[in-house]
Amino acid sequence: MSTVNHQFRLAARPVGLPDRSVWSQTEEPIGEPKDGEVLVKVLYISLDPAMRGWMNDGKSYIPPVAIGAVMRALGAGKVIASKFGGLAVGDYVGGMFGVQEYSMAPGKGLNKIDAPADKLPVYLSALGMPGLTAYFGLLDVGKPEAGNTVVVSGAAGSVGSIVGQIAKIKGCAVIGIAGGAEKCKYLAEIGFDAAIDYKTENVFESLRRHCPKGIDVYFDNVGGDTLDAALANLALRARVVICGAISQYNSTTGVKGPSNYLSLLVNRARMEGMVVLDYMARAGEALVPMSQWLKEGKLKTREHIVDGINTFPETLLMLFNGQNQGKLMIKVAGD
Amino acid sequence: MSTVNHQFRLAARPVGLPDRSVWSQTEEPIGEPKDGEVLVKVLYISLDPAMRGWMNDGKSYIPPVAIGAVMRALGAGKVIASKFGGLAVGDYVGGMFGVQEYSMAPGKGLNKIDAPADKLPVYLSALGMPGLTAYFGLLDVGKPEAGNTVVVSGAAGSVGSIVGQIAKIKGCAVIGIAGGAEKCKYLAEIGFDAAIDYKTENVFESLRRHCPKGIDVYFDNVGGDTLDAALANLALRARVVICGAISQYNSTTGVKGPSNYLSLLVNRARMEGMVVLDYMARAGEALVPMSQWLKEGKLKTREHIVDGINTFPETLLMLFNGQNQGKLMIKVAGD
Repeated sequence: MSTVNHQFRLAARPVGLPDRSVWSQTEEPIGEPKDGEVLVKVLYISLDPAMRGWMNDGKSYIPPVAIGAVMRALGAGKVIASKFGGLAVGDYVGGMFGVQEYSMAPGKGLNKIDAPADKLPVYLSALGMPGLTAYFGLLDVGKPEAGNTVVVSGAAGSVGSIVGQIAKIKGCAVIGIAGGAEKCKYLAEIGFDAAIDYKTENVFESLRRHCPKGIDVYFDNVGGDTLDAALANLALRARVVICGAISQYNSTTGVKGPSNYLSLLVNRARMEGMVVLDYMARAGEALVPMSQWLKEGKLKTREHIVDGINTFPETLLMLFNGQNQGKLMIKVAGD
Repeated sequence: MSTVNHQFRLAARPVGLPDRSVWSQTEEPIGEPKDGEVLVKVLYISLDPAMRGWMNDGKSYIPPVAIGAVMRALGAGKVIASKFGGLAVGDYVGGMFGVQEYSMAPGKGLNKIDAPADKLPVYLSALGMPGLTAYFGLLDVGKPEAGNTVVVSGAAGSVGSIVGQIAKIKGCAVIGIAGGAEKCKYLAEIGFDAAIDYKTENVFESLRRHCPKGIDVYFDNVGGDTLDAALANLALRARVVICGAISQYNSTTGVKGPSNYLSLLVNRARMEGMVVLDYMARAGEALVPMSQWLKEGKLKTREHIVDGINTFPETLLMLFNGQNQGKLMIKVAGD
């Protein structure tokens, strides 16, 4: 093999939004797999809000990406050389391949994907991390009961849209919060009972109107003022799932704490964080029903696919500007 | 009966600390009990941080005290007239008697206290609301396990001091946060493993030093920067009990939200509010072991008793200035 691997490496820790200056583009030869390894040609790179957290120094649920390292990212690809018994050339696989064209990885840690190439994007959305995050975050942490009122922020995003649809399947009333008319229209299409456009509405007032008995489960992807508006509308014994805080990730003035947190006391409510990595051993529990719901049309996903690894710095920013419509990913190469 | 009842009524909703201007002093004849009622001579009035919340307008776990109403307060007293079968003249009782010398109340809602008059203060502290708050807040919400690290703020207060002692009884390492050398010395006397003086120490650094494996249970009575310092030191799967936020109750610039709340996500931790009123039906569960621990000397309490109902406005402020040493109450009258 003499093919060159193009990569994006973290050159500096960003302050605020990460622009091109925090990345360095490198290239290196792709090499040959050692025993137990496979060489993967990356076809899709998943872009996720969590990546912004991985770029910061300091203690978190996984170590930060080191300066000079290839940027960490989930992806889906095709095995093009294998010294691992469980995977053969031509197999499709999912894993933490990074922002690069080729990834050399121990075969053991990869997920074999039994689907044609054109289905790979679904394995980065509903049947991947976003789907598992939604499933376990909602059901295991939020614990909705039929008849409950469930509110989700970032509702048109890859996690939020699935949270809302699972909540509907479980018999809840579901209200989504998203930015812009197009996204709110999409929420109606996938069965949400109501959508709140945070760009044009007073979220507190709209939540009060749509949730007259209060919010039983609030699934938060955004933090900031939206979290505060939801806290001010909790029902007794509500559950608040802290999945993310995308409004705060690029703050240069520190994170805004939820000043309405004493609503937890008034309502004997609970706020709890979740990290999907904790649920990897239980993935099957989610993937079986999720696949079934997808097949039956009860669960819909959409992917926002941008062409070309060279667009990575700008494509990543779409997440923070709210420009993506559906699960954001980069198509690196054809099959 | 022609005795006059002196009362403190809420004259205006306070902004910030409630000074004398928010109270009106009134007097009225005490009257005769109707069927089912008893007339109670109030001997002790309990002063509690929660009273500040009851003075604010807006939705909370109980309705606010109306303007012009006798200020709500727990108390202990003696039945001096009864038209309720379950209580006789001379019986000691506990109940929500208000800030006044005499209270006319339905006998049904009162707790008969089988103890001599000089023991009544304990029924407003360890064997009253603060004790029940500590017991259920720690054990039911915080769920400590033997070997856990438990941290409590407002640790020298009526709730905090009991939380710490119960945690010790349950086999935990206990660190208290309090203001001033005298309070920290008291924490050592009642068996805390360490005390942090927030007036002279950097709470974040001291917590890091005293809790090298992180905090498993944080019982919060104060909010503000102390809550943030604790959040930054959580262990994996920590439980944060939100019992109060005394540092914020008199804020004129709004409540400070905990900017480190994303530590809940990083640590898959839980923050949950508790209101002791939810546990009234289960009071016996707590009072049996608590009485036993008091008898055995495993649980110590101290009361800070100020003489005279006329001191009420200034005595109440001691709670917010941190001047009280132990459960604060007013002695209204001798037996």
